[in-house]
Amino acid sequence: MKVIKGNIASPLGFSADGLHAGFKKRKKDFGWIVSEVPASVAGVYTTNKVIAAPLIVTRNAVKKTQKMQALVVNSGVANSCTGVQGMEDAQTMQQWTAEKLGIDSDLVGVASTGVIGELMPMDTLKKGLSKILINGNSDDFAQAILTTDTQTKTVAVTEQFGRDEVTMAGVAKGSGMIHPNMATMLAFITCDAVISSETLQLALSQNVETTFNQITVDGDTSTNDMVLVMSNGCTLNDEILPDTPEFDKFSSMLHFVMQELAKKIAKDGEGATKLIEAEVLNAPNEADARMMAKSVVGSSLVKTAVFGEDPNWGRILAAVGYAGADIAVDNIDIYLENIPVMIASSPVSFDEEEMQAVMQADEIKISIDLHAGEQAASAWGCDLSYDYVKINALYRT
Amino acid sequence: MKVIKGNIASPLGFSADGLHAGFKKRKKDFGWIVSEVPASVAGVYTTNKVIAAPLIVTRNAVKKTQKMQALVVNSGVANSCTGVQGMEDAQTMQQWTAEKLGIDSDLVGVASTGVIGELMPMDTLKKGLSKILINGNSDDFAQAILTTDTQTKTVAVTEQFGRDEVTMAGVAKGSGMIHPNMATMLAFITCDAVISSETLQLALSQNVETTFNQITVDGDTSTNDMVLVMSNGCTLNDEILPDTPEFDKFSSMLHFVMQELAKKIAKDGEGATKLIEAEVLNAPNEADARMMAKSVVGSSLVKTAVFGEDPNWGRILAAVGYAGADIAVDNIDIYLENIPVMIASSPVSFDEEEMQAVMQADEIKISIDLHAGEQAASAWGCDLSYDYVKINALYRT
Repeated sequence: MKVIKGNIASPLGFSADGLHAGFKKRKKDFGWIVSEVPASVAGVYTTNKVIAAPLIVTRNAVKKTQKMQALVVNSGVANSCTGVQGMEDAQTMQQWTAEKLGIDSDLVGVASTGVIGELMPMDTLKKGLSKILINGNSDDFAQAILTTDTQTKTVAVTEQFGRDEVTMAGVAKGSGMIHPNMATMLAFITCDAVISSETLQLALSQNVETTFNQITVDGDTSTNDMVLVMSNGCTLNDEILPDTPEFDKFSSMLHFVMQELAKKIAKDGEGATKLIEAEVLNAPNEADARMMAKSVVGSSLVKTAVFGEDPNWGRILAAVGYAGADIAVDNIDIYLENIPVMIASSPVSFDEEEMQAVMQADEIKISIDLHAGEQAASAWGCDLSYDYVKINALYRT
Repeated sequence: MKVIKGNIASPLGFSADGLHAGFKKRKKDFGWIVSEVPASVAGVYTTNKVIAAPLIVTRNAVKKTQKMQALVVNSGVANSCTGVQGMEDAQTMQQWTAEKLGIDSDLVGVASTGVIGELMPMDTLKKGLSKILINGNSDDFAQAILTTDTQTKTVAVTEQFGRDEVTMAGVAKGSGMIHPNMATMLAFITCDAVISSETLQLALSQNVETTFNQITVDGDTSTNDMVLVMSNGCTLNDEILPDTPEFDKFSSMLHFVMQELAKKIAKDGEGATKLIEAEVLNAPNEADARMMAKSVVGSSLVKTAVFGEDPNWGRILAAVGYAGADIAVDNIDIYLENIPVMIASSPVSFDEEEMQAVMQADEIKISIDLHAGEQAASAWGCDLSYDYVKINALYRT
C-alpha cells in the first residue's frame, strides 16, 4: 500500500467540487462527490436516538437501491430537529441534485452539518446547485464540509490487486461546534475497486469499531454522524469477494484510511493542542482493551493533565480502573511514550527532563500493559484546553 | 422532618474533632468521629477496580464486626496505589486509633483523600493522633476532610419516631484535586436511631442510586470514594425494622441527607460556577430516566453551554438521545426552569430577557418530559469552566 497525494476524487471515475453558497458567511459551505457510474455503497450512522433528516433520507436511499452515484453536502445548517419540514427539505435537496445530474434521486446521498433547529435555507441550496460543477475543484470539497475544524482532513492510498492498481481516498470533518449546537463527524470514502455493496458493508463494519468508534473529543454523540463508502468499480479489477486474501488486503486499506481520518479528527478536536493515543496491551480480549483505551482518552482528568503537560499516571490508572472491564489491576505497567511511570501497579521514578520532552510534544502515546492476555487495542483523543471551554461556552443562542 | 443547625456530632452519643496535623501545608487535614458505643454501620464503596488501601481496610472491618465506633480521616495523602506498604500503613492507622480510644481495631474505619502514589507520612499521623480530642471541636471535622473543595458540606435533620426524636447528620467532601491526582467523594452520616446494620445497609443501598450515583463533576470515578453511615441507637427508640412505616420514614430522612450532600458536592465541583439539575419526567421506567438525567448533566457540551449562559436546547436533546435508553424521542418537551424551549421535539421561541435571567442564576433546572410513562428521576452536576481546566492542568507532578 502506498500513501499518495490526492483527494476524494483521486479514485478513477470520481469528481468533486466545493464552493461558497451562503449557508455560512464567507467560507466554503457546499460540495458534492459524483461518480461516473452508480457505485456500491456502505454506511454507518449515528447511534444517537435523535437522528437528523438528511441521515434518514440517505439511509433509506442506500437501503433501497444499494447504490450511490452522488453525495451532496452542506455545512452551516445541520437540518436536525427540524420536524416534517426538515424531512421534506432533505428530500428536496436529494431530488434537486438528482435532477441536475439527470440520475435517479435514490442514487443521491445527502449530508448536513452545522446549526441544529434551523430550517434549511432552500434558496441558498438552489444557488449552490446552480454554481456547482461536475468537474470542479476537487480539493475544495474537503473545505466545504468543515465547520469549526481548523484544517482539512484527507488521505489517499493505492494498492496493487494483481495487475490492477486500486485507489482509495477519504475525507472527513470533525468536532466543529456551531451555534447552538454539537460536534458532528462526517467521513466519506471513495474507491475504484470492483466490490459489491454487501462486501463493502462487511469491510466497513469490521473496521469501524477499531477506528471511528475509538475516537473521542468530548463524549458527545451527534445527531448527524455518518460514514459513507462508495466504490464504483472503475478499476475493472477482479471482484473482491469475502473470505479471500484480496478482501483482507482491501479491508486493511480501508482500515488505514479510516484510522488516518479518525486520528486527524481527534487531533483537530475543539480547542485541542495535542493528540493523545492510548494503547492497551496484553488484554484478555479486544473488547475490554478497546473500552479501557477509550476510557483513558475520554477522561477529563487525563485530558486536562495532558494539556498541562503533566505526566499524571494516577489519573490514567484510575481511568483504566473505572472503564468497566473485569480485569485485575494489580500488575499494570504504564508508559508515556517509552518512559515507564508505573510498573506492576507501583509508581516508578523517571528522569524529569526526558519526561518534559515527551509531554511537550504535540502527540503523546500512553501505553498500558495489563499482562493479562494477548489482545490489544488503541484509542485516540485530544487534550482539554481553555479553548474547548471558550469555543463551547461563548457561542450564544 | 426538620432541618437543624448542627454538625456530624449532633446525633446523641457522637463527638468529633478536626485539626492540622501536617499532611497539608496549613489547612486542617486530620479528624475523627467517635461514638460512645459501637454503632450499626453500612457502607458503599468505589466501583473503580483500583481501590485505595484505607477502603480495603474499612470494608474488611465492617464486614467482620458489622459495627463501627470510630472513623479516622486524613486529607492531603490518599494512600492509593501504594502497594503492600500502603496496606500496612492503613492498618497501622486503624490500630493506633483503636489504641488511643481503647477499643477493638475492627471497630475503627479509616479514610484518606489527596495525593495518590505517595506513602502515608506516619510521623504526621502519630502527631495528629497525639493532638486529637474525643470531645473536640466537632465543627472542625467538616474542614479537616476537604481537599480543593471551596466550602464545607454538612446537613443535619431531626424527625419524630413516636415520642422519640431521632437526629441524623451528614458531612461530605467533593471533587478536590490534589497533585497529581483525581476527584474523591467521601460522605459520612451519623444517626442516633436504634437500627441494625443490616437494615441500615438496606436503607443506604436503596437511596444511593438516586442521590450520590446521580451526581457527576467530570465523569471520573475515584479510587477512594466511600459513603459510611453509623447509627448508634442512643435515642433508645423502638428498633426500626424493614417493611414498616418507620423504616420508610427513616429512609426518607436518609434520602434527604444524602441528596443534600450530593447537591452540595455537585455545586462545589472543580471550577463550578453553577449547579445544574436535570429532571426527566414521564419516562417508561426509572432506570432510563436516571440514565437520561445523568447523561444531560454529564455532557461537556451542556456543561460549557451553562457556563456560557447559553440556553442550548440542542445539546440537551442530543444528550438525551445518546443516553442509551430505548425511548422514542419524537415527543419531548424541554424546559429551562419554567420556560419551554422545545415542545413535541420542535424548538419554540422564548422571551430573551426572561431566559437571560434564568441562565444567569447560580442554579439551573433542566426539565425533560418524555410523555412516555410515569416514572421520573433527577441528576445533578455543574458547569464546565476555564477554572476546571486550570485546576486540573496546572498542578504538576
